[in-house]
Amino acid sequence: MKNTFGNQFTITLFGESHGEAIGAVIDGLASGIPLDLSFIEDMMQKRKAKGNISTQRHESDKIQIVSGYFNGYTTGTPLTILIKNEQNHSKDYEKTKDILRPSHADYTAELKYGGYQDYRGGGHFSGRITAPLVACGAIAMQILNQKGIFIGSHIKQLHHLFDISFVNDEKLLEQQIKKMNESDFAVLDSSIKQKMIAHIEETAKQKDSIGGVLESAIVNIPPGIGEPFFDSIESRLSHLLFSVPAVKGVEFGLGFDFANHYGSEINDEFIYKDNKIKTRTNFNAGINGGISNGMPILLKTVIKPTPSIFKEQNTINKKTLENTVLSIQGRHDPAIIHRARIVVDSVLAIGILDLVMEHEATLSMKK
Amino acid sequence: MKNTFGNQFTITLFGESHGEAIGAVIDGLASGIPLDLSFIEDMMQKRKAKGNISTQRHESDKIQIVSGYFNGYTTGTPLTILIKNEQNHSKDYEKTKDILRPSHADYTAELKYGGYQDYRGGGHFSGRITAPLVACGAIAMQILNQKGIFIGSHIKQLHHLFDISFVNDEKLLEQQIKKMNESDFAVLDSSIKQKMIAHIEETAKQKDSIGGVLESAIVNIPPGIGEPFFDSIESRLSHLLFSVPAVKGVEFGLGFDFANHYGSEINDEFIYKDNKIKTRTNFNAGINGGISNGMPILLKTVIKPTPSIFKEQNTINKKTLENTVLSIQGRHDPAIIHRARIVVDSVLAIGILDLVMEHEATLSMKK
Amino acid sequence: MKNTFGNQFTITLFGESHGEAIGAVIDGLASGIPLDLSFIEDMMQKRKAKGNISTQRHESDKIQIVSGYFNGYTTGTPLTILIKNEQNHSKDYEKTKDILRPSHADYTAELKYGGYQDYRGGGHFSGRITAPLVACGAIAMQILNQKGIFIGSHIKQLHHLFDISFVNDEKLLEQQIKKMNESDFAVLDSSIKQKMIAHIEETAKQKDSIGGVLESAIVNIPPGIGEPFFDSIESRLSHLLFSVPAVKGVEFGLGFDFANHYGSEINDEFIYKDNKIKTRTNFNAGINGGISNGMPILLKTVIKPTPSIFKEQNTINKKTLENTVLSIQGRHDPAIIHRARIVVDSVLAIGILDLVMEHEATLSMKK
Amino acid sequence: MKNTFGNQFTITLFGESHGEAIGAVIDGLASGIPLDLSFIEDMMQKRKAKGNISTQRHESDKIQIVSGYFNGYTTGTPLTILIKNEQNHSKDYEKTKDILRPSHADYTAELKYGGYQDYRGGGHFSGRITAPLVACGAIAMQILNQKGIFIGSHIKQLHHLFDISFVNDEKLLEQQIKKMNESDFAVLDSSIKQKMIAHIEETAKQKDSIGGVLESAIVNIPPGIGEPFFDSIESRLSHLLFSVPAVKGVEFGLGFDFANHYGSEINDEFIYKDNKIKTRTNFNAGINGGISNGMPILLKTVIKPTPSIFKEQNTINKKTLENTVLSIQGRHDPAIIHRARIVVDSVLAIGILDLVMEHEATLSMKK
Repeated sequence: MKNTFGNQFTITLFGESHGEAIGAVIDGLASGIPLDLSFIEDMMQKRKAKGNISTQRHESDKIQIVSGYFNGYTTGTPLTILIKNEQNHSKDYEKTKDILRPSHADYTAELKYGGYQDYRGGGHFSGRITAPLVACGAIAMQILNQKGIFIGSHIKQLHHLFDISFVNDEKLLEQQIKKMNESDFAVLDSSIKQKMIAHIEETAKQKDSIGGVLESAIVNIPPGIGEPFFDSIESRLSHLLFSVPAVKGVEFGLGFDFANHYGSEINDEFIYKDNKIKTRTNFNAGINGGISNGMPILLKTVIKPTPSIFKEQNTINKKTLENTVLSIQGRHDPAIIHRARIVVDSVLAIGILDLVMEHEATLSMKK
Repeated sequence: MKNTFGNQFTITLFGESHGEAIGAVIDGLASGIPLDLSFIEDMMQKRKAKGNISTQRHESDKIQIVSGYFNGYTTGTPLTILIKNEQNHSKDYEKTKDILRPSHADYTAELKYGGYQDYRGGGHFSGRITAPLVACGAIAMQILNQKGIFIGSHIKQLHHLFDISFVNDEKLLEQQIKKMNESDFAVLDSSIKQKMIAHIEETAKQKDSIGGVLESAIVNIPPGIGEPFFDSIESRLSHLLFSVPAVKGVEFGLGFDFANHYGSEINDEFIYKDNKIKTRTNFNAGINGGISNGMPILLKTVIKPTPSIFKEQNTINKKTLENTVLSIQGRHDPAIIHRARIVVDSVLAIGILDLVMEHEATLSMKK
Repeated sequence: MKNTFGNQFTITLFGESHGEAIGAVIDGLASGIPLDLSFIEDMMQKRKAKGNISTQRHESDKIQIVSGYFNGYTTGTPLTILIKNEQNHSKDYEKTKDILRPSHADYTAELKYGGYQDYRGGGHFSGRITAPLVACGAIAMQILNQKGIFIGSHIKQLHHLFDISFVNDEKLLEQQIKKMNESDFAVLDSSIKQKMIAHIEETAKQKDSIGGVLESAIVNIPPGIGEPFFDSIESRLSHLLFSVPAVKGVEFGLGFDFANHYGSEINDEFIYKDNKIKTRTNFNAGINGGISNGMPILLKTVIKPTPSIFKEQNTINKKTLENTVLSIQGRHDPAIIHRARIVVDSVLAIGILDLVMEHEATLSMKK
Repeated sequence: MKNTFGNQFTITLFGESHGEAIGAVIDGLASGIPLDLSFIEDMMQKRKAKGNISTQRHESDKIQIVSGYFNGYTTGTPLTILIKNEQNHSKDYEKTKDILRPSHADYTAELKYGGYQDYRGGGHFSGRITAPLVACGAIAMQILNQKGIFIGSHIKQLHHLFDISFVNDEKLLEQQIKKMNESDFAVLDSSIKQKMIAHIEETAKQKDSIGGVLESAIVNIPPGIGEPFFDSIESRLSHLLFSVPAVKGVEFGLGFDFANHYGSEINDEFIYKDNKIKTRTNFNAGINGGISNGMPILLKTVIKPTPSIFKEQNTINKKTLENTVLSIQGRHDPAIIHRARIVVDSVLAIGILDLVMEHEATLSMKK
């Protein structure tokens, strides 16, 4: 099931960048959930391109719910979200369709689909498909928030510019998450924000692109969620995170830095505090043996620089096999990390909600 | 399906460290495959603890195939692998079972299973469960090798010691992989091997543990494997990799280093060479849009230091909730990265074979 | 995954009778399949209500493909079918929404969805949701036909009127199937057709409804398809058949009549004929041990009388819990079996294609 | 996943009739369930061959739990059941292995597995594989019984001999079920029991075999279980039932008899009685629109006569393709319906428990 994910909260993604519509089906929703459409709309807006630091393709991204929703509540049947494609400049792609854009999926699409793929704007590979993914994520997020679980991300690194890190205190962390979720450009240290925006604008002028690293946090996740092997929290979340275009690395807690330390330095000691068992440090990001221990889950995701750049690049023509020089025209983003963070939050919400529901299914056996 | 993974080549893992047996069921095997038992045995041996640099628990790890195998060939029905647990020093665990070992799954197991878990030796969380995983991986690997696909890993980093990297030439890379697969302690630069082994021994003497980073390579994967979103190669492989105990980070190609570069520096230009479309560089690790482009797949996995150390650690007793000092007795590994690389190779083989089979299923529609 | 079915050819159904649109997503299609839209249209037309023998709700049922289809060919990405709901007489349902219609899903919907379901016209339970199912089935059918596999059904029994049975000769059976597929009202014995239609019309006048039994046949299915236990052909097809509203029984070959015979009477002897191993009789419907033996697959499905009747029925009001008398107004079918046979053909095509693809996936392991 | 079934309560079956062991893995069990081993043993015993009316292969069928079970309780990790094969008369099969036994899976196994299958005693197709299925079913049954849900079956028809039907009163039905579950040869009308046994013995003397029809009942299933389409109760239960060797037909409630009636005759009127909404009749077997309405679920399953008979049968040799006459030697059953009813009860328990758990997962979203 290539475009379907989740066991209890299941989403199916569809659509191409320049087709008639993109969308998603959510199956497994309980009935009677009053959807907060402004909450969904808000996340959709934050994912959207805006200003000089993003593509000039401005879609309204208005979601249309065509099933599973009645009189303001979920019905419990599949909820289908449609988003019309409006701003189709399809001709932009016609003339260069045989030129393989470096690091894009043009060539792999050709290999897989043998020339039948919708090549316009990246087709099904387009970052645009993340719009319905965010709509699904917003619904999952609303449900998690009702349970007191909060998820948020900030731009830890943009090229050579660095933000501070999330705090290691649950109460304060929850506040930081909420602040990031209200923010259009999510950084903890407000003094770095303008520098980052300026650097994106400068990169756009240089006809280039940049990427960075997102730090994400999940607080108040119930302890005991996840499974020892294939359904470890890390497995399920990384599966979803690597589904997001541009993600090329995921690490939990100390991540790759674990390699630089002795066990004695990075083992998380258990302590008893505030009437709870906690860990003094949280290098393992709230997860031991794949299962939540109640501490915050912290993870980092690298977002590579967008492959679409105005700068000239060497490549070949897939038909003539001749070398050519390409300067990608059309509308594209000098950086997508500030938009990608909403997609990352969305897939984290989808993954966590599914795990929480499965946990409850198991517990129900003894009721 | 918590302990089952794969759509076409499906494995189900079971067992506890000190139970009667551990094992796995493989479903989806074609009939008539002559299993190379010495090949399986060889991978099992390489995963096993040996010498001073590993635990002193020496299990024979002899696999017993109790179904799906007849007269030297697979029958096409579920193949079940059993491995008896022999070296059970269960008493080692009895007296300290209420002491929460830092960074172990003792506490999360308690949270999830409410005290009913088999606590002896980590139970189902034990690294020992990777033995049947390797047996499954060895079978997948044998099948992939028949198709000309090769997979291997080396210890890129052990604490502060670094190996060189895999080469970026397919022919030479295939040779490097084969060499690693023959090696007991996999490093490309033979001059670093003894230093690494010495450092592990030294760490053991310090009653501590260390981790590191594995670099893995997959060559000759057919182009067009994988899917745009949830079944991207990165999604499926990371899902499996994070199932391996001790893995806390996974990156493909340039990985987190993508954040430090401009798009123009790290886009992989397409070239036509040796009658094939290739990329000049391979920062994206042979994967664009989730799908293989024919270039080698390269990835890194961080293996954290084993949490079991002889050194004294602060922790608490889960029953009394009092602080206590723990020095983990019993048999444990000062480093597991040299053993983990076989587990990593195994899950990569399992993941790739499954994706290859699914690709063929789709193609068959047009036959 | 409640509304998703299939491993390789996967469909996700959505929609409510009086919502904005109903539809389906097909995932797992190969790219480059030229869809025969008139073939799909033709199956859609045959499922539609027509004349006096069906409901007077006449929807155009025009399908709109909004993704996965480009320049006349499948792209290999999810293909999404939308069908707008046009003839919504939603007010018909408003005044009687608390009256539990006997044998309808009104009460179970209430139990499951707690009052949040879209009650208009049966909501997600409506037979109308079979329209996108037929669209999916038509695509599967087209692909199977290309492989020489044919599927068809006829009305074996309509209330007390009986058609003859399919022949037990593959060549002639293939012709019969094709004739049924061209027919608007599928019976083998043309002399019974008018009697059946007259009986439906007479039943409509009596404000009542009738059901019957469909006999279905599948020819030229490759031998060796299916699996011993959970993926037996019977398991997979019955799973799909019982998903069709109104189906309450499924039998393969001799079915329930097996109970009336000695083993010696109904064992299918193997013979060698026309250079092929066949069975002399085909009581087991071409399936032994869950797997196709190359003989035609024959099965019967009972379609119960539609629960919607104009005749007065006793029931209760779910709110007041008082007894009441109901005469169902609105537009409904005195019989649906002639329409249901297209739905049955559709799910059989979906099930068989999926099994064929999975078989090929396994075989690919040895390529 | 060919030999794995279930979303929350997941079982994986493995083994061959004359291999080393057969067994199953159950995943998704909650921890802390005290297994009633004598209850499991009792169901295993009832499935076993006994006396003159069954095969003379008498296996001890002793189950061995090698994982997921500790100190008398489930641990919450995969529970693995092994059953050793002891009474292997493998030589019985050697000399006739090329003779295709009519209505057995010998030929389809050959087609599917190309000669690599374990042909001894039917291999993986053997009814013997239902032993671990019963062990899994017994565990599911124990859990359901704790919830007050009861499942049982009786032999409604044995060849031309008929038992009475289950009553249509929940309280009395529960008692009937419990009585059947205590019985070795399950018939409601004790006067028919000896006639049936005598008829089986007589059939054995005639070197023939007979089948029949099982009627099964499920009481106290929570209302609102199941789903509208692919996860309808009928779909999920029929999927499992058709996995049982010898099952060739399944019907719910009135089943095929629906075809003989007008809608007005068989619609189940709603009534309010005993402070509950019920239906006056229960022709739809407690299921409307795929979902339970709280009334008992009633279904029938046809068990065909066992294909193994001592009587001479015409068939061919698969190697020489010559006609031959076969008289099946070895040990076999003149009837299996009295043993099959335990298997039917088992798969019903597995299917219902899984649906109940999934329902709870959805509800948990709103908690």
